[in-house]
Amino acid sequence: MFWIITSIVVSFLAVGVAVYFYRWVEQLPSDNANATSIGKLIRDGAFTFLKREYRTLLIFCAAVSLVILFIYPNPIWTGKGLARNAVMLVSYLSGSALSGIAGFVGISIATLANVKSALAAEKGLAPAYMAGFRGGAVMGMAVVASSLFGAAVLYLVTRDAGALMAFSFGASSLALFAKAGGGIFTKTADIAADLAGKVELSIPEDDPRNPAVIADNVGDNVGDVAGMGADLFDSNVASFSAAIVIAIALNAVDLIFCFGSLGLLASIAGVLLARIGADGDPGKALNRGTYLTCAIFAIVTFLASLICGYSLRLWGAAVLGVVAGIVIGLTSEFFTGDDKRPVKMVARACESGPAFTILSGFSYGLLSSLPSMAGIGLSALFAWRICEPLGGNYPMLGISVAAIGMLSVVGMIISNDAYGPIVDNARGIAEMCDLGDDVLEITDKLDSAGNTSKAITKGFAIGAAGLTVIALLGAFIETVAGYGVTITLDLMNPMVLFGILTGASVPAVFSAMLILGVNRNAQTMVREIHRQFDTIPGLREGKPGVRPQYDLCIDIAARGAIRELVPAGLMAIGLTLLTGIVGNVQAVGGFLAGNIVSGLMLALLMSNAGGLWDNAKKYIEAGNCGGKGSKAHKAAVIGDTVGDPFKDTAGPSINTQITVVSLVSSLAAGLFIMISILA
Amino acid sequence: MFWIITSIVVSFLAVGVAVYFYRWVEQLPSDNANATSIGKLIRDGAFTFLKREYRTLLIFCAAVSLVILFIYPNPIWTGKGLARNAVMLVSYLSGSALSGIAGFVGISIATLANVKSALAAEKGLAPAYMAGFRGGAVMGMAVVASSLFGAAVLYLVTRDAGALMAFSFGASSLALFAKAGGGIFTKTADIAADLAGKVELSIPEDDPRNPAVIADNVGDNVGDVAGMGADLFDSNVASFSAAIVIAIALNAVDLIFCFGSLGLLASIAGVLLARIGADGDPGKALNRGTYLTCAIFAIVTFLASLICGYSLRLWGAAVLGVVAGIVIGLTSEFFTGDDKRPVKMVARACESGPAFTILSGFSYGLLSSLPSMAGIGLSALFAWRICEPLGGNYPMLGISVAAIGMLSVVGMIISNDAYGPIVDNARGIAEMCDLGDDVLEITDKLDSAGNTSKAITKGFAIGAAGLTVIALLGAFIETVAGYGVTITLDLMNPMVLFGILTGASVPAVFSAMLILGVNRNAQTMVREIHRQFDTIPGLREGKPGVRPQYDLCIDIAARGAIRELVPAGLMAIGLTLLTGIVGNVQAVGGFLAGNIVSGLMLALLMSNAGGLWDNAKKYIEAGNCGGKGSKAHKAAVIGDTVGDPFKDTAGPSINTQITVVSLVSSLAAGLFIMISILA
Repeated sequence: MFWIITSIVVSFLAVGVAVYFYRWVEQLPSDNANATSIGKLIRDGAFTFLKREYRTLLIFCAAVSLVILFIYPNPIWTGKGLARNAVMLVSYLSGSALSGIAGFVGISIATLANVKSALAAEKGLAPAYMAGFRGGAVMGMAVVASSLFGAAVLYLVTRDAGALMAFSFGASSLALFAKAGGGIFTKTADIAADLAGKVELSIPEDDPRNPAVIADNVGDNVGDVAGMGADLFDSNVASFSAAIVIAIALNAVDLIFCFGSLGLLASIAGVLLARIGADGDPGKALNRGTYLTCAIFAIVTFLASLICGYSLRLWGAAVLGVVAGIVIGLTSEFFTGDDKRPVKMVARACESGPAFTILSGFSYGLLSSLPSMAGIGLSALFAWRICEPLGGNYPMLGISVAAIGMLSVVGMIISNDAYGPIVDNARGIAEMCDLGDDVLEITDKLDSAGNTSKAITKGFAIGAAGLTVIALLGAFIETVAGYGVTITLDLMNPMVLFGILTGASVPAVFSAMLILGVNRNAQTMVREIHRQFDTIPGLREGKPGVRPQYDLCIDIAARGAIRELVPAGLMAIGLTLLTGIVGNVQAVGGFLAGNIVSGLMLALLMSNAGGLWDNAKKYIEAGNCGGKGSKAHKAAVIGDTVGDPFKDTAGPSINTQITVVSLVSSLAAGLFIMISILA
Repeated sequence: MFWIITSIVVSFLAVGVAVYFYRWVEQLPSDNANATSIGKLIRDGAFTFLKREYRTLLIFCAAVSLVILFIYPNPIWTGKGLARNAVMLVSYLSGSALSGIAGFVGISIATLANVKSALAAEKGLAPAYMAGFRGGAVMGMAVVASSLFGAAVLYLVTRDAGALMAFSFGASSLALFAKAGGGIFTKTADIAADLAGKVELSIPEDDPRNPAVIADNVGDNVGDVAGMGADLFDSNVASFSAAIVIAIALNAVDLIFCFGSLGLLASIAGVLLARIGADGDPGKALNRGTYLTCAIFAIVTFLASLICGYSLRLWGAAVLGVVAGIVIGLTSEFFTGDDKRPVKMVARACESGPAFTILSGFSYGLLSSLPSMAGIGLSALFAWRICEPLGGNYPMLGISVAAIGMLSVVGMIISNDAYGPIVDNARGIAEMCDLGDDVLEITDKLDSAGNTSKAITKGFAIGAAGLTVIALLGAFIETVAGYGVTITLDLMNPMVLFGILTGASVPAVFSAMLILGVNRNAQTMVREIHRQFDTIPGLREGKPGVRPQYDLCIDIAARGAIRELVPAGLMAIGLTLLTGIVGNVQAVGGFLAGNIVSGLMLALLMSNAGGLWDNAKKYIEAGNCGGKGSKAHKAAVIGDTVGDPFKDTAGPSINTQITVVSLVSSLAAGLFIMISILA
């Protein structure tokens, strides 16, 4: 009870920090009318899209709400009354609503901080960094606080594992669509702007003549801020829900909230400590924040375990999660860092043409899956082993506590991740407002620091998702057991095998659908850019006062994203239900396992290959292998374009897809037990 | 007993057909001195490489032989005597030797039939087709006959499941290296010849001035004939071994040999029936042969089951395998056929540049995994279910009989697959000897027919590998049970989970290593081609009598392939052993399952995406989307180059990698039971 209340208190504290940072960013000067007007274009575009996206999602939520109210868990025709259904409905809607609000908060601060950071860059690196990072931290604090707060209040009120699952499903399903929609929007605009602008028309990045340039900046916000926030909100909630579902039977819920609130406290400390001096290195500051958060988390949870008399074995599992997160993060850094061998090899391959660029980057992406997957497997194994002497279901709790440990730094992760698009936007605004080369140099430095730290934090995010879904698999079996059905998922059971093979192909199909969506939309937008250049007099030459029709490009990206975001998510949910209805709960268990395995592999491949191509391009642009404009650079741009939807659309959406599928399975377990056509 | 003898008799019959076809091809006229001399260059190059490759493999075989002789299964220090070890050694060596011989036979006929087919094309389509197809059929008959013969004799003499596993391992480990080595050789030469020749120097395909052109033709033989033959020899042997290991305990070995020998009979009939009239369509003839084989197999096995009193349930499982093979084949055809939507969409994407080419082809490759994997899963499930009423281990036997059913057409598959490189070579020879446009048109038609039928047969091969390794997983558990240890592979056992996650990344790392190998070597060869063009006077202009130094390019491909073929295979074997020694048999079981799942996904992705890019390029070259030389064509060439090592190096090698890992697990099961560091 103490830690549940503490969780709520710490959440308020984090909200306080968020408000403080928001105010801090807000009071920074914005005395450049041009920058303010461009900032407003971006902000309006982002909010317009977000509203349209949420309107679509409202239909989905309404449909699910009806299903819950009348059928779940007590179908209306059984006459058991709708009280429990109403609880589920409220939980589901709270999850969705909090996730949606987090997205709005993120857009609101990010589209404020971008202008502030650009203008602060006129004063130097440190002020610009602080504007960007504190802007990002608002999002980080808001997301973690609301997820912890939501879980704590919900548990306090309902004491119902099912309600937490519904809460988590609300968050996940919204995240699935938000991440996919935002990811399609951002890469549609990014690719089209690059291809039509840089490659075909030979105008520089962020050139205000490019009709897609505002859409590109809007995309950074809706994809990398709102989408990413929804995604990590979901991961965090899912890891809590899985842990609590398992912990309830063990009377260990207190410990979960203890570690959760201390993780948030550590994140608050990390965020406050990630500052730099006048000549500091922003990349180092970001990493320092991450590592400090880890250390603080390890220390305070150790003390708390001693004081509260928790088994140190569970603490060990949490620390194991932290360590595994760092290992996976360092792997990502090795494969994507521009001072490491893979980036240099891919840059060299670029000299032999785009085919070699693609082949080598793809290969390194494949290679990167081994250490990370073995790392996730080993940490799950050790977390289990450490907690095995505690007996009962403690080993599975150990795995979910490891996930919570890995996610202790989630506040830092989100702050870093939101920092990236903010300073990216700042660069765009600086270019569009002609703030000068000094400012561009600073924003470039900030941008590249964001990329490096992102590689590490992304490792944490994927690893945590992996551990969380393993715990969710355990929660699924618990849930099934709750229906009085005890199952083992024996690999030699052909139903399990069938499930594994089918489940493994779902992330593949899911990512293919998203990538094809980006492909289609980007081609439409490229045509629109050409049309504007061909028909608007004076645009190509940059005649003063001539502006492209930015809104048309924003509209193409928005319409395309709205159209494409639903089918992929519905496919994943639909195939899960189909597998359970045609097969049985064993088939679903296999389906989840297959989904996790191939999902992790594809997510790692796509994130790391994408990051690698991006940095190989930057490495060449820094003057290596022929530098900008060389044959190698052209090949690198192609690699980067392929990598864009890999790393920013499909890759990060897979996490959410896996989580959603896991939650759907648990929630629909009763249905699968009732109907199993082939069983 | 009857069917074992029959198997041996039918094998001899097939050898007879092979000899007849060999003679038939041999007596075709070869009255063009120029063609004969080029044919000799190719033949010498192929045999030189094969000998060097086998010399390297001999070292591997010798090392394994020593291990077997002194340790396996009875370590010398236990004093149990070496008799059983000697049996294993002989079995292992027979497998390796037969696989190697099959490769030699294939090269021998293929490098004869290529010249004959080119010259026969002067007389028309039908004679050229017959020369190519009957050449391929020699290989098809030889491979199936030797695998059936080997398994039958070995079983007759030893009656030992372990010996069959060792036989299979001999075949597989050789195939692993032969497929990888051949695949690296062929794509090194193909990519280098295309990039330096077609793209950079703008000389046509197969131009005799190109120093890599002979290496390219040699590559077709060592990669697509010898390597592919070793691969399918291995699949066939593995499916028999898995089935027999399971059948022994059920007293059902007879049925396996019955279905095996009838499958070969059906293939003989199919090969004899796959002929065309003067104006026939070679693609249809090839497919007709495949479908007829399936039908004949279904009918004769039905009759045999009635006569011999076998349960019709097992016959049902076999037919299920055939049907699943066709479904998977048709899926591949849909995703790679040039009259289907995916190829047209990718061709259209080419118009927007190479990045879209890659992204769309890759996405369709991902999509293609769902129907095939669900198909494999469903056929395993149904095969199990059909045989469930028979009790005992019959359900698992059902799965392996389904694999045998799917492989009943393996004779046709190999004939088709070897036909491809033969007519591809014929095209090259026709171009190099200036046989005229009519001949080129015919050889182009033959080549494209080979591609279409290859898509279908490749589906069979991947599907059969999937079912076979599932059966091998069953055989692994049987083997472990033989040591008195009963295990279940519960997905919630963290050891199993750890195994799955690690095993899943092995095919990724394996393919990455092969692709990076091709990448490296092709870049070396491109440099060599440039050197020759720059330093040999008159070469660029095509001065009569000036010839490039073909042998230097052959040497680069050979040395590179020899260097790269071993590490990837050793990595796969090594990680299997490591997982078993660090973990336990459960970890290995999970490792196999993970390996199968991600291996199938990657194999399907790579084969289908590769075929798709290839055909999109051909579709554009046929005059669509701007035709040859257009911007779209350039993008399509890049896509095809990326697809080359996907579909011809990494993709098809994964099958073998999975099989080898499965066999290693069974063979080393005793070791894993003895030593398990973490268990």
